[in-house]
Amino acid sequence: MVDRNSGSALWHQIGEVLAAEIAAGTLAGGERLPTEPQLMERFGVSRFTVRQALGHLEARGLVRAEQGRGTFVHKGMLDYTLSKKTRFSRNLMEQGFEPGGELLIHEIIPAPARVALRLGLPDGALVIHRRGVMTADGVPVELGDTFYPADRFPDFDMVRLEHPTITASLATYGITDYDRQSTEIEARMPNAEEARLLRQPKSLPIFVVLKVDADKDGRPIAYAESFWSAERVTFKVDLG
Amino acid sequence: MVDRNSGSALWHQIGEVLAAEIAAGTLAGGERLPTEPQLMERFGVSRFTVRQALGHLEARGLVRAEQGRGTFVHKGMLDYTLSKKTRFSRNLMEQGFEPGGELLIHEIIPAPARVALRLGLPDGALVIHRRGVMTADGVPVELGDTFYPADRFPDFDMVRLEHPTITASLATYGITDYDRQSTEIEARMPNAEEARLLRQPKSLPIFVVLKVDADKDGRPIAYAESFWSAERVTFKVDLG
Repeated sequence: MVDRNSGSALWHQIGEVLAAEIAAGTLAGGERLPTEPQLMERFGVSRFTVRQALGHLEARGLVRAEQGRGTFVHKGMLDYTLSKKTRFSRNLMEQGFEPGGELLIHEIIPAPARVALRLGLPDGALVIHRRGVMTADGVPVELGDTFYPADRFPDFDMVRLEHPTITASLATYGITDYDRQSTEIEARMPNAEEARLLRQPKSLPIFVVLKVDADKDGRPIAYAESFWSAERVTFKVDLG
Repeated sequence: MVDRNSGSALWHQIGEVLAAEIAAGTLAGGERLPTEPQLMERFGVSRFTVRQALGHLEARGLVRAEQGRGTFVHKGMLDYTLSKKTRFSRNLMEQGFEPGGELLIHEIIPAPARVALRLGLPDGALVIHRRGVMTADGVPVELGDTFYPADRFPDFDMVRLEHPTITASLATYGITDYDRQSTEIEARMPNAEEARLLRQPKSLPIFVVLKVDADKDGRPIAYAESFWSAERVTFKVDLG
């Protein structure tokens, strides 16, 4: 099962074997992994090596160690539905994931050309730029840069702090409903920062999703460029 | 620009520089590349090395050599719209690409479990399996495995040969219209065969698109698993 002469570290080989079993469903989502002694016996390695392998799997977001209970396989790939009414939090909760997030950047800047174009603003108009990492059960799934027209959302940073979701924050400005106006999906290899923030290997691809949300009058209210760990999400497209 | 001590072959480094310029639009779609003597001078390398670099770009589907005219940058990324009425040939032609394809496998087999599930067939029911490569201007963009219920489409291989498109072939069986019933999008690294058939590097990701088409009564008529070179396509999602 593991090859001491392969040139690849033992802990890495063991991690890859377990990752493959998770991908194949042999180790199912929510299941407890074998104990450390069981893994030591199975692979013929030390406790230290087993712990390195498990740490590798945890860093990849495939398992989660729970204090005193053992290590559990994550619930599996997130099926994320893209529809006219796509909402991050609702999407995750419907699948039993706890949505979370962390804001990394909040700034007001002149709109870069591609952003102005998507938002229907004149070049250089001010936009609010927010970069954040969104999580499912604490595991990063999406790194996103979102741009809002600054004149339309005064004090957005304060408003957003006081509301649990984007949807609730926008309601403060009288936007009680909004639709996905356009969605584009690309895939590529991550750069070092993207891989780090998504806690995924640089050797696995990410999705790049470009989207525009618009109010009921068709005016764009947000343009986002988001980066998703391809290992952790499948997009389901609801063509209505 | 190129580093003779980097450990990476010169032709490879030059290919990557030109690929980056194509990605950035510095070398635009349809544009002619500098001549071989110009590239020899720019990079300070031999004609042989320039030819290796251009061969590398051609193998990646980024450029095309035209006899006696020079080497041209491909028209750029294909924007492929996913909608209820997605049709491969029409999609490509609307963007000025010439659609083409090559059939690699045609066989009648018992449906694998995942295929039976998607087509609403009993396990082991016979299905027609067709594997093919679809091209845009002669460059592979999609490798696809499509499964049809065998009892519904007798002599499908002959019918398909006699008609230019899938849509036209299905009309022979009285299916004058069909809709996309479901679409799922994943991304991962290709295996060796996928990379070879798509003529892309193994170090760049592919999209995996799973789709079901259904007739006007909602009965599935085709399930397909298709693999797209992520470097060559952006999916635009038409949420209707």
